[in-house]
Amino acid sequence: MQFAGSHILSISQFERADVEQLFTVADAMRPYAHRERITRVLNGAILGSMFFEPSTRTRISFGSAFNLLGGEVRETTGFEHSAIAKGESLYDTARVLSGYSDIIVMRHPDDGSVSEFAAASRVPVINGGDGANEHPSQALLDLYTIRSELAGRQRALDGLRIAMVGDLRFGRTVHSLSKLLSLFQGLRISLVSPEALSMPEAVVETLREAGHEVLETDVLETGIADVDIVYSTRIQEERFASPEEADLYRGRFRLNQSVYTANCEPNTVIMHPLPRDSREGARELDIDLNDNPNLAIFRQSDNGVLVRMALFVLILDVADQVDQHSVPVNWYTERRF
Amino acid sequence: MQFAGSHILSISQFERADVEQLFTVADAMRPYAHRERITRVLNGAILGSMFFEPSTRTRISFGSAFNLLGGEVRETTGFEHSAIAKGESLYDTARVLSGYSDIIVMRHPDDGSVSEFAAASRVPVINGGDGANEHPSQALLDLYTIRSELAGRQRALDGLRIAMVGDLRFGRTVHSLSKLLSLFQGLRISLVSPEALSMPEAVVETLREAGHEVLETDVLETGIADVDIVYSTRIQEERFASPEEADLYRGRFRLNQSVYTANCEPNTVIMHPLPRDSREGARELDIDLNDNPNLAIFRQSDNGVLVRMALFVLILDVADQVDQHSVPVNWYTERRF
Amino acid sequence: MQFAGSHILSISQFERADVEQLFTVADAMRPYAHRERITRVLNGAILGSMFFEPSTRTRISFGSAFNLLGGEVRETTGFEHSAIAKGESLYDTARVLSGYSDIIVMRHPDDGSVSEFAAASRVPVINGGDGANEHPSQALLDLYTIRSELAGRQRALDGLRIAMVGDLRFGRTVHSLSKLLSLFQGLRISLVSPEALSMPEAVVETLREAGHEVLETDVLETGIADVDIVYSTRIQEERFASPEEADLYRGRFRLNQSVYTANCEPNTVIMHPLPRDSREGARELDIDLNDNPNLAIFRQSDNGVLVRMALFVLILDVADQVDQHSVPVNWYTERRF
Repeated sequence: MQFAGSHILSISQFERADVEQLFTVADAMRPYAHRERITRVLNGAILGSMFFEPSTRTRISFGSAFNLLGGEVRETTGFEHSAIAKGESLYDTARVLSGYSDIIVMRHPDDGSVSEFAAASRVPVINGGDGANEHPSQALLDLYTIRSELAGRQRALDGLRIAMVGDLRFGRTVHSLSKLLSLFQGLRISLVSPEALSMPEAVVETLREAGHEVLETDVLETGIADVDIVYSTRIQEERFASPEEADLYRGRFRLNQSVYTANCEPNTVIMHPLPRDSREGARELDIDLNDNPNLAIFRQSDNGVLVRMALFVLILDVADQVDQHSVPVNWYTERRF
Repeated sequence: MQFAGSHILSISQFERADVEQLFTVADAMRPYAHRERITRVLNGAILGSMFFEPSTRTRISFGSAFNLLGGEVRETTGFEHSAIAKGESLYDTARVLSGYSDIIVMRHPDDGSVSEFAAASRVPVINGGDGANEHPSQALLDLYTIRSELAGRQRALDGLRIAMVGDLRFGRTVHSLSKLLSLFQGLRISLVSPEALSMPEAVVETLREAGHEVLETDVLETGIADVDIVYSTRIQEERFASPEEADLYRGRFRLNQSVYTANCEPNTVIMHPLPRDSREGARELDIDLNDNPNLAIFRQSDNGVLVRMALFVLILDVADQVDQHSVPVNWYTERRF
Repeated sequence: MQFAGSHILSISQFERADVEQLFTVADAMRPYAHRERITRVLNGAILGSMFFEPSTRTRISFGSAFNLLGGEVRETTGFEHSAIAKGESLYDTARVLSGYSDIIVMRHPDDGSVSEFAAASRVPVINGGDGANEHPSQALLDLYTIRSELAGRQRALDGLRIAMVGDLRFGRTVHSLSKLLSLFQGLRISLVSPEALSMPEAVVETLREAGHEVLETDVLETGIADVDIVYSTRIQEERFASPEEADLYRGRFRLNQSVYTANCEPNTVIMHPLPRDSREGARELDIDLNDNPNLAIFRQSDNGVLVRMALFVLILDVADQVDQHSVPVNWYTERRF
């Protein structure tokens, strides 16, 4: 893929070399995200942050990433888009809004809407989530996190053993992540879900065609043994025939410290796309895991900033200028834990 | 008019020389809006963007214009203004908010509210639309667009032939544009509307007193023949006695490529204040015009940024400093079509 | 208190020396807030402005203060926080959002929520108001205003004579201000309220233990005689047993120019936390006071910017770098009145 000037609409655009290039640039963003230095490489650039559906963390993550590069953010948060209500087409919206910024990130409730918008946009567009369809930066930050966590264990993505747990049928993130995993070699993938929420056959096929070993189970303990990563997702009550059936599965898929200790390898990494449901009765990842150093869910959301910075500098073609526009940070930057 | 430090509340403030000065400055903003150079002339300045009624495109257009000059934007988008709900007067709101910024753009649903606010503000206020009353930057960008499109045809504003089409009775934009057109000489103006939605007599009088030729008709084909510009506006169903009457007029006022080819001169420019209604059954400007190079509606919205930049630099008195605070752009700036 | 890296959650964190340090820094912010110079000391820093409850003026005041120091603002305005609706804990929200900025200001409808959030945040958090609990920057700007107004009269905070008027029972601002006043010496404090809305006994005790003279009354005229400052607050109808009782008190606690002239010393300062209710029938501070030079309510809101700038530079430990990152302002800065 040629990043410069491209739209980022789907994880299917990415070859293995693209992912590796992106992750190398994301690594180079660490000193800026960790506030050792600041860079002003995008001083004067404007991000159009067009969220026609609310998503605070995705929106702020993209916006902060752009600010960390020195750019400005103009924003809409979806509750006010009167023009669409007045019958404006996505074509018109795109032609108009793309006159106001250098690059756009867009979230929209309708499948395919971001691609339709991008086709009419005069500036590059990043898909920040379009309904049940795609959310490519989430899949990329998930894979980047797996790579980072494994690197600390002297392991690489090839040969990865991963369990995906929960609602694998409707969960957009596990579908996209699976597509990315198909770019690598020799993986062993446990799919742990109630049968009613199992991974779509097409996704399983893609993984098998890539040469990966795939195990499907509805027993949590079986699925999470002998893996490097447990990727947990929410089980939503409304997906089941009855509350009783939902209760049954919730209880059986809850990962807490004692289940972890009894079944996982000592340094198995725990991930989750967030938000996790911490209400009594939900808790697919129990809060008693909060002190477990292998709980990587907040490193994962931090990595979102790095990956989004990398997307911006590659699309706007300034990756090799980031350092030369940088200076040390002059304010208090000590972080708690 | 003395721009420095002034409020911009109404199109009536503008003499011909003011309009010409503004447009000369707007022309000088092109390299910045087109991303050939960036300027930081307003580095450190703050725009208070106070939208007590939603209007995404006007809000983002003003905000981007200010960012393009190097300034910051603090914003409110109307859904949260609890203070007004608690009985705060516009006087108090203005005194407080004008302590937070260097210049304010304000939109408000009530006629006259922006003037009332401006009277109490300690910093310059630009009217971003107050109910059915005024929206001066829209009229200015419309006129600037007419001037720009004509310039490509070696024509000037004096002697312009223009048709205004649609709801001329309730359309704020055509009233304001008519006032501006009265500043120029020797125009021929076709007013094309259903009789129930015809241009208010006072506006027609103003145009005639300025020495312009005014033709009123409810036949689209007659009105759009022999003109340089067709300025189309929405016809809203709720304005009519019955849906049947609305249907009748909608059908008769729809401009599409075949009506254009049959009736317009070969390079008649098509304008519209946007948003246009692209739903089946509406389409005052059909989407089959999208490939017509004379469709100027997106150049028109782009021009909004130039005109708003010009207003900011004139009001804040930095027009002659813009270039000296500029540097080339260092990121990818190729635009699609 | 050590400001650098600290959370600002409660007025109870402040000793007299802390208040004095803060106010000295706030004084030094005047040339920047008054647009004589700009500083870019926080160029590259990001404020997370997390308003899970609307409060336009507090939000814009904090945001403008950060912009005046050269930093960027990423914002959420509460109507869209879907993650919390999905059962996310404040712990998770804090861990995630604190990865996106250098400092956070947070407002939230629930008492104690900001402290809970701060405990999990990796960056400093300023409480922008948590329900009926605390809003420390408001109390600090109130005290700073008293100090500034007294300074013009060659008076200091020790020995201050102040009347607090209105709903003293539920008013968060008067409770916090009272705590701060307890740090000073030899005050005389009139508490003027309907008996049903009188100051909580614990607050009165604190004031008396600090050695201050406290007078409680429900007669406005008695309370506001012989004071340096009248601090007025809203009386809310819903606090009373019946509308008739509310009407009775509203009439008796309304301060207007004739009550002021008849009862106050000639240069008694009038303050109010704002917004004041200017509707007919409310008007705890009548609009006929607007031309009274001792009406300090807008100087008070302006001072909010100074105090918030001071909090930012102290917490981020750049107080002694502000001036060295400064240049003169190059745009039109004349202010009306």
